[in-house]
Amino acid sequence: MTSGHLAVIGLGPGDARWLTAEATAALEAADALYGYGPYLDRVPARPGQSRHPSDNRQEMSRAAAALAHAAQGARVAVVSGGDPGIFAMAAAVCEAIESGPPAWRALDVAIVPGITAMLAVAARAGAPLGHDFCALSLSDNLKSWELIERRLDAAASAGFVIALYNPVSRARPWQLGRALERLRRHLPEATPVIFGRAVGRADESVVVTTLAAADAAAADMATLIIVGSGETRVVPRAGGPLVYTPRAAVEASA
Amino acid sequence: MTSGHLAVIGLGPGDARWLTAEATAALEAADALYGYGPYLDRVPARPGQSRHPSDNRQEMSRAAAALAHAAQGARVAVVSGGDPGIFAMAAAVCEAIESGPPAWRALDVAIVPGITAMLAVAARAGAPLGHDFCALSLSDNLKSWELIERRLDAAASAGFVIALYNPVSRARPWQLGRALERLRRHLPEATPVIFGRAVGRADESVVVTTLAAADAAAADMATLIIVGSGETRVVPRAGGPLVYTPRAAVEASA
Repeated sequence: MTSGHLAVIGLGPGDARWLTAEATAALEAADALYGYGPYLDRVPARPGQSRHPSDNRQEMSRAAAALAHAAQGARVAVVSGGDPGIFAMAAAVCEAIESGPPAWRALDVAIVPGITAMLAVAARAGAPLGHDFCALSLSDNLKSWELIERRLDAAASAGFVIALYNPVSRARPWQLGRALERLRRHLPEATPVIFGRAVGRADESVVVTTLAAADAAAADMATLIIVGSGETRVVPRAGGPLVYTPRAAVEASA
Repeated sequence: MTSGHLAVIGLGPGDARWLTAEATAALEAADALYGYGPYLDRVPARPGQSRHPSDNRQEMSRAAAALAHAAQGARVAVVSGGDPGIFAMAAAVCEAIESGPPAWRALDVAIVPGITAMLAVAARAGAPLGHDFCALSLSDNLKSWELIERRLDAAASAGFVIALYNPVSRARPWQLGRALERLRRHLPEATPVIFGRAVGRADESVVVTTLAAADAAAADMATLIIVGSGETRVVPRAGGPLVYTPRAAVEASA
């Protein structure tokens, strides 16, 4: 081990209420913070701690810059929204270590988990992830659309609840609509669907609809979508519906 | 809304480092705590707050007791290890509300998310959940073994990484061995497998092996298992291997 240290820290979604004690301490201990600008803006400033914001799409160059900085003997933190291991910076850091100079393998690397978006959206809605589920990124930047459809088919037909990350972006306008169409081949029209947007932030919204009525245009980059299985239920209440997937499962149709 | 309030609180795995600020505040605010005894033992005592421990298998009666208590106007908390929405108490509370008296639907119910075991185990290992993944309970108490095998087939053949919850118990000794056998039909022998036991506790262990060498006897009730996809990689390091699933996926075989 060198004296260099790299922490990859999950901030959770939304505000500081979902920050863990470990993440708070790791942010405080860092000499330098790297991350997407809006995530860095969520971390309170501390004198003597440098900040290195970068653009959303620059994961590999950000990981490499943070590793090079740590290899100089600094305590460096890469901050990530949600959990760093779920469609976020931890995999990019591992990739950079594998393909980088040998010294990077000698660094002390810590991944600090966080509340990932699907847990926060599920908590707002009830317990839609209460039984077997999948998490799937709809981004076809780094995999083919055909593979995404194959995974949607497999997950829905086997009775998994499905959490959809990265449903839409300016460069990917049609993918969510196609995914919902695909899921309609496998699941009943009444299957509950949850659109959770900016959960934990001031402009949070959580909308419960059905697979038949779900409208891709209602999602943006800050939205996480949960599509129920054939078992997922909605409990009407005056204060808003509870959506949950029972702990017991009957046979799903093949 | 009545004045009654029920919070279902995720403690995260292991010690207090993974508790969120929201969970800490919700535990402090409760008049009464319900939960599995060892989880309650992790919450610091507060004068005036009553404790109602129950056995691990009594989810429905615990949920009903907590709801009945809240319906008397109290602030009641049900504590759960990990995240309450992932194979834990939130679904049981929703089930109890659906089948219970109408007054229970008028309660103010809050689900407080937590770090679920697969996020903590993944963080210790690197980023094995860095791409599409499933979470599957191996308990066949509330679903058939045939359905579990169908889901293992679907997940592995479509290239999902798989997190296995509830791999074994005294009453379910053979299920994990059968699941690993089933997965060997779909995945290469060298597929990385992680056994994460008691992560965050003093007796934590994280072992990285391969699907060929994975031994079901190495798991107990405190173990969470992550089985990689065909894409998951191991980066050897002097300080222990890093396991990650790259953000980019090539086509998985059908």
